[in-house]
Amino acid sequence: MTDPIFNQQVVLARRPAGAPRVDDFAVTETPLPPLGDGEVLIENQFISLDAGFRKWMDEGSGDHILPAMGIGEPVMGLTLGCVVESRHPEFTAGQHLMARLAWERYSITDATDFLVVVPEQYDCPLRWHLGILGDTGMSAYFGLTDVACPKPGETAVISAAGGAVGSIAGQVARIYGARAVGIASGADKCKRLIEELGYDAAVDRTADDVPGALAAACPDGIDVYLDSVSGPLLEVVLGQINPGARIALCGAVATYNAGAPLPGPSNLFQLVTNQATMTGFMTHLMHERYPEARQQLLDWIEEGKLVNREHMLHGIESVPTAFCDLFAGRNFGKTIVALG
Amino acid sequence: MTDPIFNQQVVLARRPAGAPRVDDFAVTETPLPPLGDGEVLIENQFISLDAGFRKWMDEGSGDHILPAMGIGEPVMGLTLGCVVESRHPEFTAGQHLMARLAWERYSITDATDFLVVVPEQYDCPLRWHLGILGDTGMSAYFGLTDVACPKPGETAVISAAGGAVGSIAGQVARIYGARAVGIASGADKCKRLIEELGYDAAVDRTADDVPGALAAACPDGIDVYLDSVSGPLLEVVLGQINPGARIALCGAVATYNAGAPLPGPSNLFQLVTNQATMTGFMTHLMHERYPEARQQLLDWIEEGKLVNREHMLHGIESVPTAFCDLFAGRNFGKTIVALG
Repeated sequence: MTDPIFNQQVVLARRPAGAPRVDDFAVTETPLPPLGDGEVLIENQFISLDAGFRKWMDEGSGDHILPAMGIGEPVMGLTLGCVVESRHPEFTAGQHLMARLAWERYSITDATDFLVVVPEQYDCPLRWHLGILGDTGMSAYFGLTDVACPKPGETAVISAAGGAVGSIAGQVARIYGARAVGIASGADKCKRLIEELGYDAAVDRTADDVPGALAAACPDGIDVYLDSVSGPLLEVVLGQINPGARIALCGAVATYNAGAPLPGPSNLFQLVTNQATMTGFMTHLMHERYPEARQQLLDWIEEGKLVNREHMLHGIESVPTAFCDLFAGRNFGKTIVALG
Repeated sequence: MTDPIFNQQVVLARRPAGAPRVDDFAVTETPLPPLGDGEVLIENQFISLDAGFRKWMDEGSGDHILPAMGIGEPVMGLTLGCVVESRHPEFTAGQHLMARLAWERYSITDATDFLVVVPEQYDCPLRWHLGILGDTGMSAYFGLTDVACPKPGETAVISAAGGAVGSIAGQVARIYGARAVGIASGADKCKRLIEELGYDAAVDRTADDVPGALAAACPDGIDVYLDSVSGPLLEVVLGQINPGARIALCGAVATYNAGAPLPGPSNLFQLVTNQATMTGFMTHLMHERYPEARQQLLDWIEEGKLVNREHMLHGIESVPTAFCDLFAGRNFGKTIVALG
């Protein structure tokens, strides 16, 4: 009889009050149970950190997507790992899988957790499937290509411009010929937006006069807004849209820590006077077109038109820090933790 | 020398605080000045009452559409009248004109006030050009036909359902095969929505539990919302939208009396989780398609599929009452005052 494998898991130690803190989480070690019929044992290699999971840490936050996370329970997230052992007919040892599982070293699943086999046809690091070729890259690509559709000469504003979605979206907007203006926190990050990601201008959302700074960065008004932040910034942008503007909503980071619902923008009437559109989207419904999008993004990288930035930490004990970095604005590019 | 013509005008006696009151206005009588070169003298026959004009009665409310109205100055609105005398090369006596002029018996204009010659090809009462064939009818038609596009079997919710836009929109939604649910103030008006306009269900927005009443009226959720009200009602509707819902915004009556901007809906994220769209529109940009829309609406009336309701008052001194009726929910159908 072999010794049991010990699993390390990040559990929710308490519900975050506002922005999450590292000590809202704890790392535990428990022996892995034996693998049952129909189950798969996965050794996780990468964990993707996504701000959207914050909202399921609140009491009573469960919905049709996920139940509210429980105190002392492993924290849910997006993972990429390798099958160690399979007692499920559809999976075999050695396969790479992505799933909505927990922040843990090993996962045992009955394959009901949105298990997706990592496609092998792309010549890129495995972890990119959680970032530029995953949900965040797809949000940037489809948010611009299908929803907001920036045209040459237009001004495209991107919120959380240094984040996983924004760091790609600004570059895609420029590929489509638009002027890209990024909004991010702090002068340092704003500098990086321009120098590393090619943004034409950047607005520091911690500045005293954000509306003034945005107006200065967008002298011809705003035609496109890709928003993953919502909150007061959306009202500021609405105040400066052009006729026919398209606003694509893919997230609402500003609201995730709020506890209670935040009031929406008081100037939605701007949509009427400008005949403008605000569209929410989630990329998983565009799943059939992922191959097209992935290949296009990789081609752009190959052609030198697009760079992929990552904020990478190492080891399971770094996962809480990496998650908190998202809300503290310490990330630049896709935030990911490499395990093992 | 003939006696001067005396003009009766409704002037702004003071700025309304909240909902307008009849004594915010006064009727004055002044001699008409002589007609100058390039000017047209119009005898107004009908005045259209439109809630949207309320906002320009506030201090500092001027924008690119209209300057703020001045105390003691004639109140601006939409008029339909007949040319009495023309010293302008493009207009001749006897022509019927619509314009954004003042609440007055006679208007003198140099034709910069959005003057439109009433088209003569339609077999209908002249005043319909301010209602069902005018801005409000066009909003109902294009808001559904082009923006929100209800499909057979879907549920279409219409706010201010007894108003000038809503009284037509509910019927149009049904013509397109949707289930039409109207929201209006008071049990009486809700009854009329169903009995006179064919709404499938009605929700009283003065009820204690509006979200519950709306959910009961929309057991399959909401696919389309044509909104001319905005305010808290928009948040209630957003809470019940279906995946792929389309929200068409054409007004924001709830905000016109507010004085200060009202917070927007706190649940805009519903657009994301439902991949839904919110589009603002103003029909004047669809001007080239007005003939198509007008003919279609008249055809539907001819075929017995559509009825046109009006809230008609008489005489220039009734104009303030008619305007206040819009905000007190006393109107049913298009509110109009016949002069002379």
